[in-house]
Formats: sequence, structure tokens, C-alpha cells
Amino acid sequence: MARIVQKYGGTSVGSVELISKVADRVARLFHAGNQVAVVLSAMGSETDELVAMAHEAAAEPDPREYDVLLAAGEQKSIALLAMALMDRGVPARSYLGPQVSIQTEARHGTARILNVQCGQLEADLKKGCVPVVAGFQGVDDRGNITTLGRGGSDTTAVALAVALDAAECQILSDVDGVFTTDPRMVPNAQLMRRVTFEEILEMASLGSRVLQIRAVEFAGKHNLPLRVLPAHADGEGTLITYEEPDMEAPLVSGIAFNRDEAEITLMNVPDRPGIAHRILAPIAEHDVEVDMIVLNAPKDGRVDFSFTVHRSNYDRACELASQATDGLDGVAVIGNSQVVKISVVGVGMRSHAGIATRMFEALAGEGINVRMVATSEIKISVLVDERYLELGVRTLHEAFRLDVTRQ
Amino acid sequence: MARIVQKYGGTSVGSVELISKVADRVARLFHAGNQVAVVLSAMGSETDELVAMAHEAAAEPDPREYDVLLAAGEQKSIALLAMALMDRGVPARSYLGPQVSIQTEARHGTARILNVQCGQLEADLKKGCVPVVAGFQGVDDRGNITTLGRGGSDTTAVALAVALDAAECQILSDVDGVFTTDPRMVPNAQLMRRVTFEEILEMASLGSRVLQIRAVEFAGKHNLPLRVLPAHADGEGTLITYEEPDMEAPLVSGIAFNRDEAEITLMNVPDRPGIAHRILAPIAEHDVEVDMIVLNAPKDGRVDFSFTVHRSNYDRACELASQATDGLDGVAVIGNSQVVKISVVGVGMRSHAGIATRMFEALAGEGINVRMVATSEIKISVLVDERYLELGVRTLHEAFRLDVTRQ
Repeated sequence: MARIVQKYGGTSVGSVELISKVADRVARLFHAGNQVAVVLSAMGSETDELVAMAHEAAAEPDPREYDVLLAAGEQKSIALLAMALMDRGVPARSYLGPQVSIQTEARHGTARILNVQCGQLEADLKKGCVPVVAGFQGVDDRGNITTLGRGGSDTTAVALAVALDAAECQILSDVDGVFTTDPRMVPNAQLMRRVTFEEILEMASLGSRVLQIRAVEFAGKHNLPLRVLPAHADGEGTLITYEEPDMEAPLVSGIAFNRDEAEITLMNVPDRPGIAHRILAPIAEHDVEVDMIVLNAPKDGRVDFSFTVHRSNYDRACELASQATDGLDGVAVIGNSQVVKISVVGVGMRSHAGIATRMFEALAGEGINVRMVATSEIKISVLVDERYLELGVRTLHEAFRLDVTRQ
Repeated sequence: MARIVQKYGGTSVGSVELISKVADRVARLFHAGNQVAVVLSAMGSETDELVAMAHEAAAEPDPREYDVLLAAGEQKSIALLAMALMDRGVPARSYLGPQVSIQTEARHGTARILNVQCGQLEADLKKGCVPVVAGFQGVDDRGNITTLGRGGSDTTAVALAVALDAAECQILSDVDGVFTTDPRMVPNAQLMRRVTFEEILEMASLGSRVLQIRAVEFAGKHNLPLRVLPAHADGEGTLITYEEPDMEAPLVSGIAFNRDEAEITLMNVPDRPGIAHRILAPIAEHDVEVDMIVLNAPKDGRVDFSFTVHRSNYDRACELASQATDGLDGVAVIGNSQVVKISVVGVGMRSHAGIATRMFEALAGEGINVRMVATSEIKISVLVDERYLELGVRTLHEAFRLDVTRQ
């Protein structure tokens, strides 16, 4: 018997038939003696349809009204699930964001949760009633409906689970869990049974397919066990906790990757204090996110300064970098927008040297040139030519024995 | 310059394109210097679709959740209209039932409005902002969403117009106004320019095609001018007030009718006190509504007692009437479920005798037998065989000169 918050994604509640299946699943969990609270997204493509309507109604939809419109999506799904549960003899009750209440910043489209008042939900759980809460939405201090941004339902679920002191927050969707790498690229990618918060954050490109990174951060901050599992299939999914893997576990947990990277290098930049700031400040000011940053050791008072941005920002970033170094003699800006980033991630590598060595060795063995390297305590990322993406991922997946079934 | 509450029905906001047209219309009214508040129904068949989903999700949908589900309909339409208005440079702001707030009984599906707190709306109107309010929905004293029942948006509009002390409440839909009789039956039926609250209430069968009778009662009680007019066409529609027609106006305003009536007669009932109660009480207890009631003068200590019910209640009412008179010797229950009611209505008939005479004369001239008669101060209704419905309506429409264009 435990207190569990379950969140079902849009695809999992895409029709009344699927909502009925969700009701069966929740009913089983409830009848097994658990206290269950459910958070739902809007049904299937409902949100997309509402977005399309907004853009048909107004050239630039007002943000407040946009949120009112979008919030109607979850209102439908929670009412339908609550009635389906009651139809199965499970006491249930739907709650909209303002009814819980889930209080957010007074900001539309991407509001952050400030506070969750779940006294009524607590009372429901204690008396054996299943609260069914609208994900993605909240209310600001003046009673306006706000939304949390795409994928915000995950954050709603985690915030509720934390406020209700739940034993576990389960994110149910149409995927089986988090894999050692993208199964579409490496067919023998393995489902990870356990993974740490730190790892999942470093593997954003893998994790973000199944849950919102903001929700992972929130859960990590409050040490709330998060589980990713399939909504309409059997399987224990992937449990995300702070627990470190045991001795037998592999050093590397997964291979993440980011397509659509672009690399910009400023050659022969004078090596003097503040030069990095002079280059990056205007880029940051223009809301261009910089990922990897590499500064080589100086040679003859000059350094090569490299960084990566998302490919969509490549032209802009090149231009800003040129402007920033305009008037600096001998500096050349060169770039490459056909690169990708591959990362090996694992808390196990913390205490083990040699991961980088094995990584470079494996890549070299396939003739893959490493253009840039960035390291963190539990991640090593390399930038390689786009054409080596699949080969690189497969090579590393094999090199670190991730294709072997783990417990 | 005036303060006007406009309510647009579901068909009038059935698509984003139509909502855009509504926005154009509201913008014109606003730019002409008026203070405008708008109440909307859900888009087109949205409510029907939600109802169908509810019945797919649960055999007997929980009433509270049913209301949460249905209320999502208006949430969409108000957000879309508000953003469309802002897109046209008209300051606007959407309000859900709980946001206004529209406080109702703690009762789902058919809640009555108890109170409207429209301080925020008042402030909006004064500063030149158009509040766009969700019709049909409210909130009970514990924060639960309630709905007012089908057509409840009319009531929302009238309640707001009363609370805001509006000059006029306009009900805009896909009909041109209220006609002297059903134009589908009598092609030369005339649009009534003006009609009184009393008349429209007596002509429920005509009026209910364009607005909810509960809203008319509400408006009448508060002497709020109501206007029924087309949403997407020109025309002044029909103004409903307490004003009596002038001397030149016809005595009769319209010919109303009710299909699907059924007549039950108890023959030879002993004429003693309490007999009507003995017959009707069990029928009322079973929620069967009785319309016309006729009791003839007694003959030899016996009377014939007749009443009408809706055809769908005919069998039940016959059975209840038989049970009620079981044990009374010589009583026979006979009935006819193939009858209809035709009524002539007009405040002008108050001060004029001879309306009934002219009515019976006209019907007799066509060989139409009158089976039952009921009169009120401004209405005379007759029950006739179903096959005479069209002929009877046309005959009376002509007899009272309603086919002549009025000012």
C-alpha cells in the first residue's frame, strides 16, 4: 500500500476508449489498496487543434486568452476519466488547476508553479477517493488561468507528488521507459531499469522523449522517485532516483546525442582577459543558447575559441561573433553547421578513469574524427561530423557493453 | 451610446470563421461608442459531441463531472472571441462562470443562478474593454462548476444584463426573430417587431425556438428589454418589452401550437369535493406534467373530467388515472393520443370580447372540431385532432389578419 501519483500523457488518453483503459488501470491500483492521484494531459491532438484554432482566430493570439483556450483540453480529459472511474465503482473527483489550487506566476504560456494547495486532495486520498487533476494548468494571484508550457503536465504531477508526499510519481506514456540510447538508431538499445537524476539530466536528449526535463529537476530537488512506464502495456519501466548503481553495474549508463548542432571557431583571438565575455555576451543577449565552449591553451599570445549553438541559430551566431571581433586584427571566424554531439553518460564514471580513453579509442577505431570535447563529472561529449552520428552512437553503445541485458 | 449585453448562440459561433464575423459585429457596436458585454454558447455541435463522449465514458456519467466536461465548450468559444476582438484592436477579456463569478445552486445540470458578482465586468465596461463571458456555466458555493441546462446561455445573458443595468439584452442566433406563427408551416408568417413578455411566455412554442423561456421570465421580472435578432444578417429582430401595442395593433399577436399532445377523459366521475385532487395528485407525483384541465358542469351527480399531457406520458397517465378511479363505479377512462393544441395569443384580446367567437367560427368554417378549450387573459387554446394542425394554424393566422405586414 502506497501513495502514488500517476500522470498519463496525451497519446495515452487520446480517445474515450483509451481513457476507459486508463480507468481500468487506475481502478486496479486503487483496489490493490493504494492511494492514487491522477494527472492528465489533454486528449491526443486536442492541444494542437486548439493552437490551430487560436491562430485562425487571431494573427497574434493574446497570451491570456491562449491559455484559457488551451486549458479547455485537460478539462475534458479529467471529467471523462473521473466519470469512467466512478462507473467502475471507484470514488473519483476532477480538479482544474484553479480548483486544486495550483498557483503559478502571473505569466502566460510558460508559467512556473509557485505553490500547490492540496488540502482537498489530501482529504480525498485519505477517504478513498481518487483525485483526477488537470495537468499543464494553474492560476495566478488574480484568478487568471495560466499554462505551464508544453509537457507541463509532468511538472504538475511532480509538484503534486511532492506536495502530497507520495512514495512515487509515475509518468505513463506510449514508451516503455528510458533506453541506453535511441532504439530507433540502435535496435538492441536496452531499457534502463534504474537511472539517477543526474544521469537523466545529462541525457536530456534521451529523457526528453519521455518526460519533461523541468519535471526531472523538480523531482530531483525533492528526492521524489520518478518512474517512466508504458500506459497501455506491461512493464516496470525506468525508475529515476538518487541511488547509485551497485558495483556490478556498468560505468556508462547510456549514449545520448544531439542532432542539429553547429560549431563556430574564432581563430587567433588575442589571449587577454575578458575576451570570452566579449565574444559570448552579445550572443547571449540575442537569446542564442551556447552549449559547448572550448578554449585551447594560448600559443604566441593567441587562442582559438570554439563554441556550439543549435543549427537554427548558426547564421545569427556567426554574424554576432564576427561583429564582436570586428577590429581585432588577424581573427578569422570559421564554422561548420553539419556537426552533431554524442555523449556517454554515467554516474559510474565518476570514480573511474579511462572512460574518455576507451571512448576516443572506439571512435578512432572507426575513423571518426573528434572535433571538440566537453566533459562533466558524469558525462563526456564529443562533437563529430554529422555523417558519423549513427556509426558513432552504435560504436559507443557497443564499446561500453550497453547492448547486454541488465537487471 | 448604450450599454448592451449580446448573447450569440452555438450555431452563430459554430466555426472560427463565424467567431471572426461575430468579432467584426461586436467591434462595430463597440466602435460606435457603446459599452458591450458578450455571452457565448459553445461552438456549434460541441456540446452534443461532449455529451456523446460522456456516455461513451460512463454508463451513467456523474453529474458533477458531466458539468466539468460540458463547461469546456464555452471555454473555447470565449477565448477565441476575446483574441479575435483584440486582433481587431478592441480590448477584450474572457471570463469563465467561476471567474465572473456567476454563483448558482449546488446542483448539477440544471442549476439556477443565485447571484452575479460583476464588479470586474463593470470595471471593464467603464474602461472600454469588452468582457466575453461563458454562458451556461456557473460555480456553486464550494467551487464546483455547475451548468444551467440546455439554453442556459440565454439566462446567463439576461442575468448579466440585469446585474450590469444594461439598456438591452440581445439574443443573436440563426433566426430573424419571433414570428406570428411557425414560418415553416405558414409561409407568410410575419416577423413581429414588438411583442410583450406576457405574450412570448404564452407563445412558448414559438418563442422557445429562439430563446429560453426561463430567460424571458427573468427579463420580464426585471423589466429588461430583450431583443431577438439574427447574428449574421441584417434586421432589427423582435423587441420583447412590457409595452402594450398601440390602438392600431391587432388584437392577436400570434398563433402558437403544440404537437404531441394527448388527451385523457374520465367519464362519469362522481361529482364530489376532492375528486380532481384524487385524480391529479398521483399523476403529479410521478412527474407527469398536466397542461389543460377541463371539468364540465355536473349532470346527474356525475362529471366528465378531461386533461392533457405530453404524448410521451400518455400510457403512464392513463394507467395512473385508472388506478386513481379504481373502485369508483361506472367510471370509464378514455383517451386520445393523436391531438394537438393551437393557441391564439395577444395582449390586445384582454379588452376585446369576441376573440373566441371569431376563433371558433373560423375553425368551424373549415370543419375542424374543437375537443377542448382553455383560456387565459391573453390566450385561448383549443385541442383538435392532429390531422387538423396545419389547416387550423393557417386558418387562424388568416382569420386574425396576421399575414399582413405590420410596423
